[in-house]
Amino acid sequence: MKIALDAMGGDQGPELLIDGALRALRRNKELSIVLLGPEDLLKERIAQCVDSGNVAGRLLIEHAPETVTMEESPVEAIRKKKDSTIMRGFDLVKNGQADAVVSAGHSGATMAAAIRKLGRLEGVSRPGIASLFPTRKTPVMLMDIGANVDCRPQHLFQFAVMASSCCALLQNKKSPRVGLLSIGSEPGKGNALIKETHELLRQSNLNFVGNVEGRDVYGGELDVVVCDGFVGNISLKISEGLAEAAMQMLKDEIMKSLRAKIGYLLIRKAFTAFRKRVDYAEYGGAPLLGINGIGIICHGSSSSVAICNAIGEAAKLVENKVNDSIVKSLRQYITA
Amino acid sequence: MKIALDAMGGDQGPELLIDGALRALRRNKELSIVLLGPEDLLKERIAQCVDSGNVAGRLLIEHAPETVTMEESPVEAIRKKKDSTIMRGFDLVKNGQADAVVSAGHSGATMAAAIRKLGRLEGVSRPGIASLFPTRKTPVMLMDIGANVDCRPQHLFQFAVMASSCCALLQNKKSPRVGLLSIGSEPGKGNALIKETHELLRQSNLNFVGNVEGRDVYGGELDVVVCDGFVGNISLKISEGLAEAAMQMLKDEIMKSLRAKIGYLLIRKAFTAFRKRVDYAEYGGAPLLGINGIGIICHGSSSSVAICNAIGEAAKLVENKVNDSIVKSLRQYITA
Repeated sequence: MKIALDAMGGDQGPELLIDGALRALRRNKELSIVLLGPEDLLKERIAQCVDSGNVAGRLLIEHAPETVTMEESPVEAIRKKKDSTIMRGFDLVKNGQADAVVSAGHSGATMAAAIRKLGRLEGVSRPGIASLFPTRKTPVMLMDIGANVDCRPQHLFQFAVMASSCCALLQNKKSPRVGLLSIGSEPGKGNALIKETHELLRQSNLNFVGNVEGRDVYGGELDVVVCDGFVGNISLKISEGLAEAAMQMLKDEIMKSLRAKIGYLLIRKAFTAFRKRVDYAEYGGAPLLGINGIGIICHGSSSSVAICNAIGEAAKLVENKVNDSIVKSLRQYITA
Repeated sequence: MKIALDAMGGDQGPELLIDGALRALRRNKELSIVLLGPEDLLKERIAQCVDSGNVAGRLLIEHAPETVTMEESPVEAIRKKKDSTIMRGFDLVKNGQADAVVSAGHSGATMAAAIRKLGRLEGVSRPGIASLFPTRKTPVMLMDIGANVDCRPQHLFQFAVMASSCCALLQNKKSPRVGLLSIGSEPGKGNALIKETHELLRQSNLNFVGNVEGRDVYGGELDVVVCDGFVGNISLKISEGLAEAAMQMLKDEIMKSLRAKIGYLLIRKAFTAFRKRVDYAEYGGAPLLGINGIGIICHGSSSSVAICNAIGEAAKLVENKVNDSIVKSLRQYITA
C-alpha cells in the first residue's frame, strides 16, 4: 500500500510531517509513503532525520514545486497551481501510483482538488468532510464539518450513510448509532431541513436514534452526528475556541494563589494527559467522503503522532474498501 | 419598580427562587418582587425563609395555580394553562402591575406567552432570545439562541440591532462590536442567509466588525454575535456539553494518581472559581428581545445568585427603557 503525504501542508514545516511519516512506516511494514513537495528540499530534510527503524527505503519523493497557501481560494488554487502538492497527490491516486492522500494543508483546496481529479462516487450528490470529536467514551464522527454550506435533505441523508459506513470501518462498529443534530430530541423539533431529513433517516435501515441536541455531541452515546457544513464547522470551531478559552481562564485562576500554583505542579501530568484527550489536532484526520478515492485532511497544528494516526486511518480505509461500502449502501436507496 | 418572578420555574424548587428574590431585594431598595405561584404554597415557603435584610414587605404574591412542565409544547401550554405562572406574569406586565417577568421555567412557553400577551415591538418581525456567553474578557451576547429556526436576512439584521441596543445598556458600551457568525471571516464566506445578512449589516450604522468564526465567540473581542436560533441553540448546547465532558475527563485523569489527587486538593479553590466563570447558569438571564415589555429567561439550573442577577438585569432594562432604544434604532432603517 502506498500513501501520498503532503509534506508542505501544516503550520509546523516538513520536518514534523516527515517525522509523522517515519512513525507510520515503523508501525506498518506493508506501507510505503510518497512525500509530496520540492524534491531538493525534501531530500535535504530527509537526510537530517534519524532513521531509527531502517524504513527510509519505503519513503519516496514526488516532486511538487508549488504549495497552496491558506489565504488562497480553493477554486483559484486548483486552477492556477497544477503542480501543487495537493494536485500532484490526487494525480498519483488517479494514475494508480498511490492509494490515498493525507494533507494538513488547505482543507478547501484539498477537497476541491479531490473532486476535480477523482470525481464523485456513484450516487453521491455532495462529498463532505467527516471529523472525529473527542468524548469521554469513544469519539463521535460529525459530518459535514464545512464542505457544504447550503444543503438539502437528500445531502444530509447521504452524509449519514457515508459517515456510518466510514465509522463502521474505522471503529469496528457493526451498526453505528446515528443522530441528527437539532434543537430538541422530538421529531418535530428543528428547522425545515432537519424535519425533512428526519423522515428520510427514519425510513432508512441505518441505526438512526433520532434528533440529538448540541449537548449530546460530547455525551459519548453516539457514533455519528449528521449536520450541514455550516452548522458542523461552527460546532467544531466553537468547541476549539471554548477549550482554549477555558484553559486560559483556569490558568488565570491558578495564578492567583501560591497554594494553587503548587497544586498545579502536582497535577500537571494529569493535565497534559487531559489536554491530549480533548485536543482535536491529536485525533488523526478528517476523511473526505464521497470522492472516488481516499483523502484525509489533518488539522494544521497536528502533531507528528496525529499525522501518523491519519496515515494509519487512510491505510485502514483503503484496505477495507470504504468506498465500495458507501456505494453499496447508497445503491440500496437509489434502487429502492 | 416591580419585577414578577416565576417562583415555580427552575429545576430546584421555589426555595432557591425565593432566596434569589430576597438577595435582589436586599441589593436594590427601590425594588418590589411579585412571586408567581400557588398562594398557600408560597406563603408557607416564605415563612421558612430568614429575612435577614428586613425586605419581606417588598415581597408580594400573585396567585397562579398552574405550572408549565418542560415536556409541554409552548403552544399547548399557553392555550390550556391560562392560570400558569408564566401567563399570569405577562398579564401583570400587560396591566401595568409589574414592569418585567423573570422565569427559569420553560423558555419556549415563556417566549410564546410574552408574544401572546404583550405582542411585538413596532418594527420587529421576530422577537428572539439573547444570551450571554462567558469569555476571558467581558461576556459576549449571542442572539438568537433558539426562538427562530428558519430565518431570513431581515430577521438576523433585526437581531443585530436589538442585541446591540440591549448590550449597550447592560454592559455600558457605547458602540458594541457586532459580529456575524459564519465559517470564515471573508465577506463571501458562509451560506446564502449569511451572505445577504452581511450586506445589510455592512450598510448599517452598527459597529459591524464583519463575519466571525466559531472560534471568535470565546475570544473576548466581540460584544454581540448574530446567528439564527438553530445555530445559536446548537452553539449554546454544544458549549455546555463540552464544558461538562471536559470536566469529567479532567477528573478521570486526576483520579489516576495519588500525586494528582493531592494536587487537586490544593487547586480546588481555583477550580471552583473557574467553574463559576464558565457556568452559563451563573450568567443572570437571557433577555427576550422584540416583545412589547421586558422578559428574562434563566437557565433551569440557575443558582440563587444567578436569579438575583437576572432580576437586576431586568430592572436595568426597565430603567433604561431598552425597548424605546430598540424601536428608535429599528425606525432608522424602516424610514431609510
